[in-house]
Formats: sequence, C-alpha cells, structure tokens
Amino acid sequence: MSNNVLDGLYRPKNVAVIGASSTPGKIGYTVVENLIQGGFEGKIYPVNPKADEILGLKVYPTIADLPAGVDAAVITVPAKLVPQAVEDCGKHGVKGLIVITSGFSETGQHELEHEIVEIARRYNTRILGPNIVGYLSNTEKLNASFAPFLPLVGKAALISQSGALLIAMDASTYTRRVGFDKLISIGNMSDVDFADTIEWLNDDPATACISLYIEGFKDGRRFMEVSRKSKKPIIALKSGVSAHGAAAAASHTGSLAGAAKVYGAAFQQAGVLQAGDLDNLFDLTLALSLQPPMKGDNLLIITNGGGVGVLATDAAERYGLPLKFAPADVQAELKKHMPEFGSAKNPVDLTGMAGNEWYMDSVRYALPHEWVDGLVVLYCETAMTDPVEIAKGIKQAIDESGCTTKPVTVSFVGGEKSAEAMRWLVENGVPAFGAPDVAVNTMAALREYARMREMVADNSQVEIKADRAAALKIIANARTEGRGSLTEIEAKQVFTLYGLPVTTTILAHSEDEAAALANKVGYPVVMKIVSPEILHKSDAGGVKVNIKDEAAVRDAYRTILANAKAYNASANIHGVAVQEMAPWGTEVILGSVNDATFGPTMMFGLGGIFVEVLKDVTFRVAPVSPAQALRMLGEIRGGPILNGVRGEAPRDKAVLADTICRYANMILDLSDEISESDANPVLVYEEGKGVKVVDARIILKKK
Amino acid sequence: MSNNVLDGLYRPKNVAVIGASSTPGKIGYTVVENLIQGGFEGKIYPVNPKADEILGLKVYPTIADLPAGVDAAVITVPAKLVPQAVEDCGKHGVKGLIVITSGFSETGQHELEHEIVEIARRYNTRILGPNIVGYLSNTEKLNASFAPFLPLVGKAALISQSGALLIAMDASTYTRRVGFDKLISIGNMSDVDFADTIEWLNDDPATACISLYIEGFKDGRRFMEVSRKSKKPIIALKSGVSAHGAAAAASHTGSLAGAAKVYGAAFQQAGVLQAGDLDNLFDLTLALSLQPPMKGDNLLIITNGGGVGVLATDAAERYGLPLKFAPADVQAELKKHMPEFGSAKNPVDLTGMAGNEWYMDSVRYALPHEWVDGLVVLYCETAMTDPVEIAKGIKQAIDESGCTTKPVTVSFVGGEKSAEAMRWLVENGVPAFGAPDVAVNTMAALREYARMREMVADNSQVEIKADRAAALKIIANARTEGRGSLTEIEAKQVFTLYGLPVTTTILAHSEDEAAALANKVGYPVVMKIVSPEILHKSDAGGVKVNIKDEAAVRDAYRTILANAKAYNASANIHGVAVQEMAPWGTEVILGSVNDATFGPTMMFGLGGIFVEVLKDVTFRVAPVSPAQALRMLGEIRGGPILNGVRGEAPRDKAVLADTICRYANMILDLSDEISESDANPVLVYEEGKGVKVVDARIILKKK
Repeated sequence: MSNNVLDGLYRPKNVAVIGASSTPGKIGYTVVENLIQGGFEGKIYPVNPKADEILGLKVYPTIADLPAGVDAAVITVPAKLVPQAVEDCGKHGVKGLIVITSGFSETGQHELEHEIVEIARRYNTRILGPNIVGYLSNTEKLNASFAPFLPLVGKAALISQSGALLIAMDASTYTRRVGFDKLISIGNMSDVDFADTIEWLNDDPATACISLYIEGFKDGRRFMEVSRKSKKPIIALKSGVSAHGAAAAASHTGSLAGAAKVYGAAFQQAGVLQAGDLDNLFDLTLALSLQPPMKGDNLLIITNGGGVGVLATDAAERYGLPLKFAPADVQAELKKHMPEFGSAKNPVDLTGMAGNEWYMDSVRYALPHEWVDGLVVLYCETAMTDPVEIAKGIKQAIDESGCTTKPVTVSFVGGEKSAEAMRWLVENGVPAFGAPDVAVNTMAALREYARMREMVADNSQVEIKADRAAALKIIANARTEGRGSLTEIEAKQVFTLYGLPVTTTILAHSEDEAAALANKVGYPVVMKIVSPEILHKSDAGGVKVNIKDEAAVRDAYRTILANAKAYNASANIHGVAVQEMAPWGTEVILGSVNDATFGPTMMFGLGGIFVEVLKDVTFRVAPVSPAQALRMLGEIRGGPILNGVRGEAPRDKAVLADTICRYANMILDLSDEISESDANPVLVYEEGKGVKVVDARIILKKK
Repeated sequence: MSNNVLDGLYRPKNVAVIGASSTPGKIGYTVVENLIQGGFEGKIYPVNPKADEILGLKVYPTIADLPAGVDAAVITVPAKLVPQAVEDCGKHGVKGLIVITSGFSETGQHELEHEIVEIARRYNTRILGPNIVGYLSNTEKLNASFAPFLPLVGKAALISQSGALLIAMDASTYTRRVGFDKLISIGNMSDVDFADTIEWLNDDPATACISLYIEGFKDGRRFMEVSRKSKKPIIALKSGVSAHGAAAAASHTGSLAGAAKVYGAAFQQAGVLQAGDLDNLFDLTLALSLQPPMKGDNLLIITNGGGVGVLATDAAERYGLPLKFAPADVQAELKKHMPEFGSAKNPVDLTGMAGNEWYMDSVRYALPHEWVDGLVVLYCETAMTDPVEIAKGIKQAIDESGCTTKPVTVSFVGGEKSAEAMRWLVENGVPAFGAPDVAVNTMAALREYARMREMVADNSQVEIKADRAAALKIIANARTEGRGSLTEIEAKQVFTLYGLPVTTTILAHSEDEAAALANKVGYPVVMKIVSPEILHKSDAGGVKVNIKDEAAVRDAYRTILANAKAYNASANIHGVAVQEMAPWGTEVILGSVNDATFGPTMMFGLGGIFVEVLKDVTFRVAPVSPAQALRMLGEIRGGPILNGVRGEAPRDKAVLADTICRYANMILDLSDEISESDANPVLVYEEGKGVKVVDARIILKKK
C-alpha cells in the first residue's frame, strides 16, 4: 500500500462536503446522499453555515469548524466562492479536493482556475477537477459524486474526461456486466491529471487495468512516461480524431500529422492499447482486467459450430492474429474428444454433438500445451446442451489445467441461457462475449499488449554525440539575419552535427570557387541557387543536375545566377551550392513537427506519390528507440518495397532505422529552436550501403 | 400475395412430417412437438408406419395414406430412405419438401443428393435442404424445424447456410431484440437456393429486409441477378474470407482475386450490403428492417452529451458519412431549444440540461427540414431525466414531424433504464443501439444502401460490337497448335476485335519485312520476339525499345533472333513483333479471372508497385456498367493519381472506364474460351487523349 500524496484524495478516511445542502435536487444534497447510500464507512462532514443537520448528519458551519485530519473535501459551492473554499481547506490541512463546481477554464475562466491551483499549491493540497462529476470507488464504498450509484464491482479503473459519459458508463457497467473498482472524473485537470492518477492506480491493489476516455492531454510527454512505466494494462479511447481537427501547417509533415496519427504513435510508444470505439473500450477492459497477456502468436480456437469457427478464423486474420494449423500431437490428442467428422486442425471443431466432457477434455489438454499461447472457446447454443453447464465446465477445465499464464476468452452465441452462462463466466474471471469476433478481437488485444510491452521494455536509445553548440550557432546566425528558416546548406550542416549522412554540399560565392569545389567534390555534381527568398528553386531555374565537367560547372553557375535574378531581382543571393550527386536509391522522406501536445514528433514515409497521394506515413514522438524505428519501416503500406522488389536487393533498413533515431534525437535536442523540418528525399541504398539525405529543410520556431 | 411455386414450401396450409416419431429426443418427435408448440393453425400430418398417435395427432402409416392437397412435408427419415420418401411425396402431389436429414453432399454423398433432386423434378416438387435445421415463420406460426422456438417477432427474414448458427441466432433474437419473421435453413441447396428464396421473399408482405449468412454460392450470377431486382434490402455476412482460401493462380489477377474481394465486388454490383461481422449483421438488419434508405449525405446528430457527440462525429468520418455544419437557418432555429452554452452546429449539443421538450422540439423541426437527409439522436443517461420518457418523446416528435421518408437511428448510453427505453423504441419502429458508433454505422449503411441501389438502377451497359467469330478463329488456331495461351500479337488481335485500343503490333517474319513494317508504323518502334516457348521475353534478350531508324531495326531483328536461339534453341519462333512505341502515360493494369462462383471477373489497378507491393486493386463481375467502372477508378487507394498529381493534367478517366467496360464485355463474350487475361501495362493519357494497351495476354481454358 502506497503512502502517496494522492492517498488523501483517492483513499480518504473521511470526506467533507463544502456546500452541502438540505434541499433535495441540489448537487450539495445529492453528494451527501450518495456518500451515505454508497455505504462510505468513514466520517462524512457536511459544511453549510445555514443548516444544523443534513440527512441525519451533523453539519459544520465553516471549514475551520471541521475536526482536524480531514482527508478529502468535495466542493460544490458556486465558482466564485471556490477560491475561498480552497484557501480554507488548505489552511485546515485537507489533503485532496474534489471540485465538482463548473465555470472555470471550460467556459473561458482561465484566471479563476489558475487562482485555485495557486492557492492549493501553497498548502500542498491536491485538486481533482474542477468541472467534474466526482470520484467513485467500490473498495472505499465511496460515491463522492453526483452519479447516482457506484459501478458494478470489478477490477478496472476508469478515468474520464467527459462527465456525462462517466455517468452513462456507470449505469452501463450493470447492463454490459463489465465491472470497475473506480470511476474518476478528471474534468479540467487543473492539477491532478491522467498521469498522476495512472501513477497512483499502479500502486492500488484493487486496480488490475486502467481505462481512459481522453479528449485531449495538456502534457502528452508525462502521460507517455508514466504509461511506459505502468505495470498494469492501460486502454485508451481517444475522441475527436476526425479530420476537422488537423491544423493547416507549413510542411508536408505538418499537414499529415493529425491528432489521430500522433496520439496513435504516442499510445504505441507508451505501451497503451487504443480502443476503437465505446463498445471496444468496454470489451478490452473486461479482457485486460481478467486475463494475462498473450505472449506468443499461436492462437487455438475450440468450437462446437463450424459457422462461428469460420467467423472467428476470419476475425483472427482481420485483427492480426492469423490462425495456424495445430501441430500433429495436439491434433492427435484432440481428435480423441470429438466425433469422426470433427476437425482438430484449428479451429478445433468438436461439432454440434459436443457436450460438456469434450469441451473440458479439450480445454484441459490444450491450454497448458507448449504450442498454445492463447485460447478462444466458442459455443453455439444448441437444443441439446445447457450453456451454463458448458460454461462451468470450461472454467473447471481451465482451473484443472493449472495454467494461469495464458489468456482465455470465450463467446457464446445464443439467447438468455447463453447470456446467463456468460454472466457466470465473467463473474468467475473468464471474459465472455456475445459474438465470436469480439472474443478474437480481445485476444488480439491481449497479444498486442504483450508485444507493446516488450518494445517498451526495450527502450534503448541511440546515443547522441552531437555538437549542440555549433547547431545553435548556425540557427542563431539565421535568426540574426531575421530569417525563419535555414538555407539548405545550413540545414545540412545541422543534420551533419547530429550524425545524419547528407550529400556533400558546399556554398560557392563565385564561378571560380564553384569550379574548384566541383573538382574537389567529384563529378557529376548538382548545383542549386542558395537564397532565403527563393524557396522553390526549380521554378526559378535555380537547379542544374548531372554536371559533368568544369566547363559545365562554370556555365551552370552563370545560368543559375542569371535565372535567379530574372526570377526575383531583389532576392538576397548567398551563392550557388555545389553538391555531390547521389546515385539513385529508394526515396524516403523523414520529417518532423512540434506537436502542441507531444512536442517534437517524427514522421517517416516513402517518397513521392506515397506521401503525396497515399499519405502512407507513420509517426513517433521523439526520441525514437531502434526497435520503434524498425517497426515504423514495417508500418507503412509500402514497407515491403524496402525488402527489395522487382529484383532489387533489400534496402539498408538498419542504417535507415538508425537515421530515424538520430533525426529524432536532433529534433528533440533542438526542440526549442526547430518548429518543423524535413529530409526529402532521403535515398536508401542496398544493405550495407547506407542512406543519403539529398535535401534538407529546417523551419525555426517563432521567438 | 404471390401464387409462386414456392408458396407450398414457404406458406403451407398444412404440413406432413415424414419420419415422425413418438420417442422424445428424436428429431421426428421434436419437429412434431415444435409444430404444435409454435401454434401452427393448419393440419399437421405425422407419417409413421408403426404409430397411431403422436402428441395427440393422428398418425398416417404411409405417405400414400395422407389426405390430398398436402403443401409441405418435413423429411426426417435416414438418408438412405429419403429418395423413396421424395418419390412418394412427389406422387402424392406434395408441393415442397423440407429435408432435415443429413448425410448428402456435405459428407461426399453427391450421388444420393443428385438422385433426390432428379426425383423431385419429375413431380415438380421443390426441396429445401437437405442437411438443414428446417424452416420457421412467425406469420404462419410455423416451426417446421428442430430449433426450439420461433424467433422474436419482426420484419426481417434470415437465410442461413449454417444450421448451428441459425439455432443460436434464433435464441439471440430475444436477447438482442432484433426481430425476424422467418428463419430459413438453406443447407446444401440441392434445389431451392438463396436466389429462389430471395425472389419469393420479395413478394412476401411480412418481409421488409433479407439477411443472409453465406458460406459459398453455387451460382453467383443468379444470386446477383435476383438481388439486383430485389425491392427489399439484402444484408450479407460472408464467412470464410481469410487468406487461406485464396487459390494459387497463374496470373497476377488470379493471385489477387481472393474470395473476399470477388464476393465484395459481386455484393456491390448486386446492391447487397455486406455485414462486417455477426454483431453488424444484427445491427444492420434492425436498421434496414425498420427505416427507409438515406437519400443524401447530410447527417444531423442531436445529443445531450458532448462526449458521445464527438465519438459519433469520429464514427461518421470513419464510416464514410462525414459531418457538415448545419445551415444558418437550422442552427438559428435549434439554438432556441438549448441553453446558451449548447451548440447548434452539428453535432447539435442540447447539453446535459436537455429534457424531453428540447429533444422533441429539435427532432420535430430538424427531421422534415430539406437540408437534413438522416438523423441520429443520442442520449447519455443522466440522473435528471428519464430515458423511457425521452424515448417516447423522440418517437412522438418523429410522428408529429410527418416525415416518413428519412431515416432515424438512436443510441442511448446508460444502464437498465436506457436499455428499457431502447427496447421500447425498437418495438415502436425506431432502431436503437447501446453505442453511438453503432447508431452512426447503421445510418451509414442506410446511406450506402441508397447509393448502391441508384447504381444498380443505372445498369446500362456499353454496347458490344465485336467480331466474335474472328476472335474464336484466332483462339481455335492456337488450340490447333496445342497452345494453352495466345501470343501477344494474337491477344492484341482479340482485344482489337472487342474495341480495345492496343499499340499497333505486327509480326515480321524476316529482316526486310521488319524494316518495311517499321517504316509503316513510324519511329520509334519497339521490337519483341514472338514465340510460344519464350514467355519472359526480356530475360531472353528478346526485347529492344526506342529503335529510331531502319538500320537499327535491321540490327535489332538479327540480335533478337540470335538471343532467342541462344536462350532456347528448340523454341518455335513465329518471328519478331514490330510495335508502335507508345508515349509515356500513367500505367494501369486490367486483368481477368474466371471465378469458380461468379464466372468472368475483371480486375483494375495501378501498375507496377501498386499492384505488386500494395495489392491496390479492385474487382467487378463482368459485365461492368459505366457507372461501376468509374467507381472502380475511385476505389483504389492510388485513385487520386488519375486526377493528375505533381502538376500533371488529369488522366482520361472516361476512356479508361469505357475500356474497362469493353474488356469486361470481351471476357464475358469469350468466357467459354478465356481462363485468365491481362492488359499490362495500359497507358492512360491526359483527358481527351485516351489509353493504349501496350502488352496483352490471354490464357485459354483447358478443354
């Protein structure tokens, strides 16, 4: 049991209600009523200057009048009175405040919200809210909220940013039969936020699984850090992911980085399972709160109906856990527990003749078998078998197998008897669902959870050996000249300082210098105008490629300068870049944005139409571990191109992944300076031959 | 009311049970019991030579002893006795046979199954089954099956190829509250199949919507034809779509045409909605059996909770029905029925303060408004409002609006009270679901249904003006030579006969002829070896491109011949093709397979890595209407490339679509001859400039 600073808030021994009311219908009355009806065993202290007794409880006229040692106070007074209430609570030593009152930042009253946090900090008092429904805990028999009752008992905790949804989900726990120990309305998160609460729940013995309804974080990085360390599964439903939210941005990367993709990347890196919708949030909560993760890819399905077996097989493929045939020994043993026309291949079809015994024999044998990593048991209601008996048999067989480290999910397709059987299973720790697809979907989530945790555990980073001071000097110089972005040459210098392999690119200030540089770089070369005012160099006739000798270099220099002047007579021309001409390779693009929630965030995609038309890109919040970088390469649809297609040799994925890590290090290290950036194209060569960044761009943060 | 040949089977006035038994537990007993318990009002005639009475009913010793005018007979005798039973029923004039008995084609007894069909045909008797659970109809109070009870009363009909699933779904109708009028176990489909039944259900006044669980069709084309004509929505759950099923095939197209894609194409062309899983089948059945299609794209969402509103907004985008802001007049009116801090934009957020009146005012106003095409009403259970009252208010407002042509779906998120409210809504014709995503998903299906029916209604075809005889002659010639495929030149000749624009390609038998032909075709030209034994021409050094003058033609001719001989000395060389060199265009690929279920089926995709790596292709069963061909162009992920990217002009989609139609006509017209084919690449030029088929391949059916 922890001795956390939030214990007073989340595990209070007593609760005061500031603004308690004797008028039914008022929130200050409802909260007191709910505390009593919930069965809270600690003291309840209503505070109201005008009443002596509320619902049989002694009322205290002011906070100062309360006994010493108050753990938590629910605040329901009007917004303008909240600062004084917080002050009084602070003075009195109250540890946690549950501020139900609304009318703070959600209605634009940011100052008022700031004020109460400032006051609370002075007294080391923590605030949940404001603008919340309250806090409910079955373990504490504590309903410190205006939600009418405690949720169905269970092992999960819900943290919800929507109060209305929390109340509705509270009621839903009974009809959906998904139990929760705690419901936490997180509201405006003026002080206590998702991360604080997840940290506390990790030490809470009553919580096995943490479910989140998220509208938006304030500090995405702390959420990631805390989630990464979480010993308990976290499941997140993020709302507001439709395209309306994607902000207009200056770069490719910016326009591609919608909330959905960046949150998705952050969840992946933090080892958080993402729920697709509300049903899925409940389903995954049930499975993850009752079952261990699935540690390998071998899923065995046992069924009494071919139809549901096939539907489950389809679902397994759809959810990324395709079935394999069971090995010969497993098939041989299972064949003993089914009629001639049954199938032991996988799905294991015991046929409609299957009674309790065959189910039990199969489960008891299969679950502990070393080949099996997870088991989905399906039952199609028949007129000949009793669903409740089958359910009890399955549970008994699981117990008798002695195997507690592998997950089992179940689906019974049928009517009221099947529903009863599934309720029994859930009450006895086996997640059961009305459709085979859902049993498979939750099993796939148990697998994905194990995969994610493995990656999170291996969070080794590529070491930075960068000359940050030199990079900052280049940037400072550009700022001195009033520029909001670096030139290509400057950007490549910064890239080089962070160990990114760029094409050699040197600025020539004269025709002679260009000739000398070209001779040094080696032919052929590319030449490009360098001018902060000329961003679209090709349009300005400012690019010449495949220049093969000195005479051509001199010619190109003159032509490029003339074109540039014709294009923009007032452009400030730094000179002409002479650049190594990289041989052809597979084009990819790296990029970055500084996300409002997560900070420096990295993009990877294949170049050209893959980015422009297919939006075939993937994101990670910086820094990026080598394992995550490799996963990025496989996540895009065009990923197989890097394996070599049409007779090409495989591309150098190792160096590409390393380049992603270095790039991520750069944008993180320079996050105060870089707003957006890209390396486009980056050419990827065959294995052992590395990559080359051909063009580089860095847009600076406005200061 | 129809006077259909299937009336005897599906709307019998009396029912005989052949193999009726007096032993409880036997199927012949269960069927009689179920007929009685179902409340069937017609006569029930048990047939059994050894009993006088079963469950109080008079038993007839033989079929010949039955009264005249028997409509339907349920057959439960062992498989080997079925032929005689069918014979006797036929002789006696029984119109329809419900053959429950198994042990026919599903266990390899194809001959036995063939025999009973042959017998039945002689007497114009129809067979449902064999190997089925039976047939259940609420309207007829007929439970002619061994499923224990009739389903929850409703307006849908289910046809299921899995008997076990039908029994389980029967029970599920009560827990899911999705009503059916009829459950039809279709089994082996020896005679009556999906198509026959769909046709009959179209004339059945008790059926509003037809739901299918499909494992596989025998005759896909007839299913499509009947479905296309259906006046009632059809929803299909196709199982067995995972990759295991995709057969190895000789061509690109073959390897890409898995069951999932071809069935998906057929459903699209036939105007059949495809359910994603079992839950979805029930959800869509509920919505489609109760609500009209959504005829435009403007979805309005009314909610009392921001959270569920945002989840529904995300879902709307996910399901292809993205929200738009409501027009000013709608917003102005709705603003009157909500507090200051509510939102009338869309989703319309009445806020948690919303009571019955605001809901009613909003629904009553919005539903008939010309801008609104469909309405999703969401309710998040609060402590202050009564869900049942809100439900009744919504229904009353819908009725008072007088609008019956626009769909409404509802979601109540909450507990038992919300569940009760939703049961009430469903019983009163308004589909209601426990999650906002599902209300939106079903609305999107109502929209998709309207879209599909519009396309199906416009099934105009591109006219064929083809010289079929000439094509058959080319093919016959290849067969005479013992070849299983056409040469490129022959394939292009066939393509040309069907109006497909191919690059001019002429066979030269000598160097001089090659030179003369090149001069005629115009430079530059491409030259290729033509030999049935050399399929990979480039590997054999048998291709030369960009040949610019006569001398080069002569040189190429000699080199190609020499290379071909070096590559395969025994190859039968027809000569060297001299081919017009088409200018660069966007590469696409057309192809075809002869699908076992649907026959000639057409593929379209972008060329190169789009096909090879991304598998970015789409299918249609031939023939393909111009509207469907245009839809194909938009269905692939790379579709936007045809709109012109990176400054290119838009591609000639009109001609490309026309080419798809012609190609489909060709494979259909020659379906007895062509096994697989492709046109790869086809170059697509800018608008007005058409397309060119550069390479052509036709593989012949084995005869």
